[in-house]
Amino acid sequence: MEDHTVIDPWGSAEISDYEHVFKEFGLKKFPEEMSSKLTHYFFERNIVIAHRDFEKVFNRIIAKKPFINMTGIASSGNVHFGHKVDIDLFKFFKDCGAVNRFAICDLDGYVSRPDKKVPSLKKAREFSVENLSHALALGLSEKDVYVQSRMPARYYSFAFELSKKITANTHEAMYGHLDLGKISANLLQYADILHSQLPEFSGKMPSVTGIGLDQDPHARLTRDIAKRLGEYNIEEPSFIYFKHQSGLQEGKKMSSSEPDTAIFLSDAPKEARRKIMRAFTGGQPTVKEQREKGGNPDICKVCEMLRFHYPNTKKLNQIIEDYRAGKILDSENKEFTTQFVEEFLEKHQAKVAEKLPLAKEIVFGK
Amino acid sequence: MEDHTVIDPWGSAEISDYEHVFKEFGLKKFPEEMSSKLTHYFFERNIVIAHRDFEKVFNRIIAKKPFINMTGIASSGNVHFGHKVDIDLFKFFKDCGAVNRFAICDLDGYVSRPDKKVPSLKKAREFSVENLSHALALGLSEKDVYVQSRMPARYYSFAFELSKKITANTHEAMYGHLDLGKISANLLQYADILHSQLPEFSGKMPSVTGIGLDQDPHARLTRDIAKRLGEYNIEEPSFIYFKHQSGLQEGKKMSSSEPDTAIFLSDAPKEARRKIMRAFTGGQPTVKEQREKGGNPDICKVCEMLRFHYPNTKKLNQIIEDYRAGKILDSENKEFTTQFVEEFLEKHQAKVAEKLPLAKEIVFGK
Repeated sequence: MEDHTVIDPWGSAEISDYEHVFKEFGLKKFPEEMSSKLTHYFFERNIVIAHRDFEKVFNRIIAKKPFINMTGIASSGNVHFGHKVDIDLFKFFKDCGAVNRFAICDLDGYVSRPDKKVPSLKKAREFSVENLSHALALGLSEKDVYVQSRMPARYYSFAFELSKKITANTHEAMYGHLDLGKISANLLQYADILHSQLPEFSGKMPSVTGIGLDQDPHARLTRDIAKRLGEYNIEEPSFIYFKHQSGLQEGKKMSSSEPDTAIFLSDAPKEARRKIMRAFTGGQPTVKEQREKGGNPDICKVCEMLRFHYPNTKKLNQIIEDYRAGKILDSENKEFTTQFVEEFLEKHQAKVAEKLPLAKEIVFGK
Repeated sequence: MEDHTVIDPWGSAEISDYEHVFKEFGLKKFPEEMSSKLTHYFFERNIVIAHRDFEKVFNRIIAKKPFINMTGIASSGNVHFGHKVDIDLFKFFKDCGAVNRFAICDLDGYVSRPDKKVPSLKKAREFSVENLSHALALGLSEKDVYVQSRMPARYYSFAFELSKKITANTHEAMYGHLDLGKISANLLQYADILHSQLPEFSGKMPSVTGIGLDQDPHARLTRDIAKRLGEYNIEEPSFIYFKHQSGLQEGKKMSSSEPDTAIFLSDAPKEARRKIMRAFTGGQPTVKEQREKGGNPDICKVCEMLRFHYPNTKKLNQIIEDYRAGKILDSENKEFTTQFVEEFLEKHQAKVAEKLPLAKEIVFGK
């Protein structure tokens, strides 16, 4: 696409920074000939930036053949707008005709987190219900999801079997530790990504999982395991990599332990307003300077919120252009973004309330 | 019991050797007031030598209250007379009115053993069928047993949950490694011993598992985990310790990788005869010397076979006495033992053939 850099008013610089990293690790930049055919703004806005072996999934999407669409959320906190990106991407692949496997990772959430954060499986399951109610409200249905602790025996057996395919040295080199809880969580994650290809589930098939760049070592190890599974006859899973939406404060990640860094999908609209009003922006110290020099949308957390979640790309680009030109002040941009987020949350939370009984039923049984 | 040393013509010396070990590790010598009330020759012959916290199970046996009877076999080879001791002991507790949980450890067998020995879960399951057919022939029934890879989700979830209760340091100090397959096998074993006490299974209850002294660190860790399970509300499991029957050759353990060290329950009777005829004995170099000096039953593998498996204690004691006195030659003792073993194997193998279809059904499903 000719006007790709126009459509993506941020990121281009950043992306070229990544390119040597891509090369070094064998990642491929997500190509325009694929992104132009995948009709979601994540692709046109370079939120999806790289891939590993995604061609085989892409070819199936184009040929309208089934593929496995797999992702999950570790049940260790409430869902925020960062998670929404994963769920939206999953929903997009669902709409492409995938075999859908969205994992509610209650076991993972419990065993991999310190007791301070997730003191019991029961607590993880409470997070599961919350997380799942939002996923359902965002367009997933009951048959698209599964709960780690409620699977058939074959799934767990497979997770344990995989333990024989990784040496302690490899594990320690990759993750820097041999913590038993985190080893367990990893075994479950490998199983989450690979088990659908077993004959007891969907059978051998290309699969795609969207992850952050920081999770690539995990992806490479999972592919390596798949390669060494011999008679299991498993296709190496494909991955696409997206940028993480950063926290609302400067230099922060979105984190459930620092609630002001993120807007949670369960935040009251006026709580979301408060957080946006306090967010770090790309504005100038005074209105006069902002009018003269313009703002910097590349570092502005409010612009970033729009970029990751505001669906109208044409309107978005206009906002970014105007912000950069000093035609839009921070106060105006914040007000616009707040209204968008408040309106989204109101509608979304009505759906969540409706889906909550189903989420409980899926997590705790009928 | 006054004549305990008479009933146990070996072991007394050995047992006193053990006593300082018992003290050091907090084990208790198995007391006569318990062994005299447990009517199996394992107890009168000091094959069961020590215990940890067995009183609470003993009290339930005497009071005819239920308790959990738990043991298992790792599916990594064919069953030999060494395993028969575990199964016989399990059968004894079954007859005492226990809640029976005999684990067919196909997952454990696969993940903890090198590929050379158990190359696949399928191979482990073939061992499972073999092992189970013998256990059924020795008096276990379908409802007494379970297969690790065919359990409800709660069992596996629990195994993974336990990973959060052991630090990497503890695991490494205890087992000397952090091998992922063996970690998985350990998690499954902790779950095997403890899961029956979950409300989803039999609920909180004293349990007993018979093990060898060398497995005590594992037992202590399992008890330690139980102690730290807090809201799970699990009673610390009890253990009884038995001596291992040694291999048929001098200084050897029974091992499926050295088939002449052990008689397998699937050995043809004449194969068993050959092995007994070649076994290490306590005899003297010549018949004359044996008549004069007598044999040494304490080191004789043929006597040991009788001690662990020949049910008539009175007759056994006569044999041992006569052997020691030089009244029985090795050739006579071997012939007697061979006839006993051949006869046992013939009857047993007829039952195994009968139980094989059920064993297959339990392992592979209907």
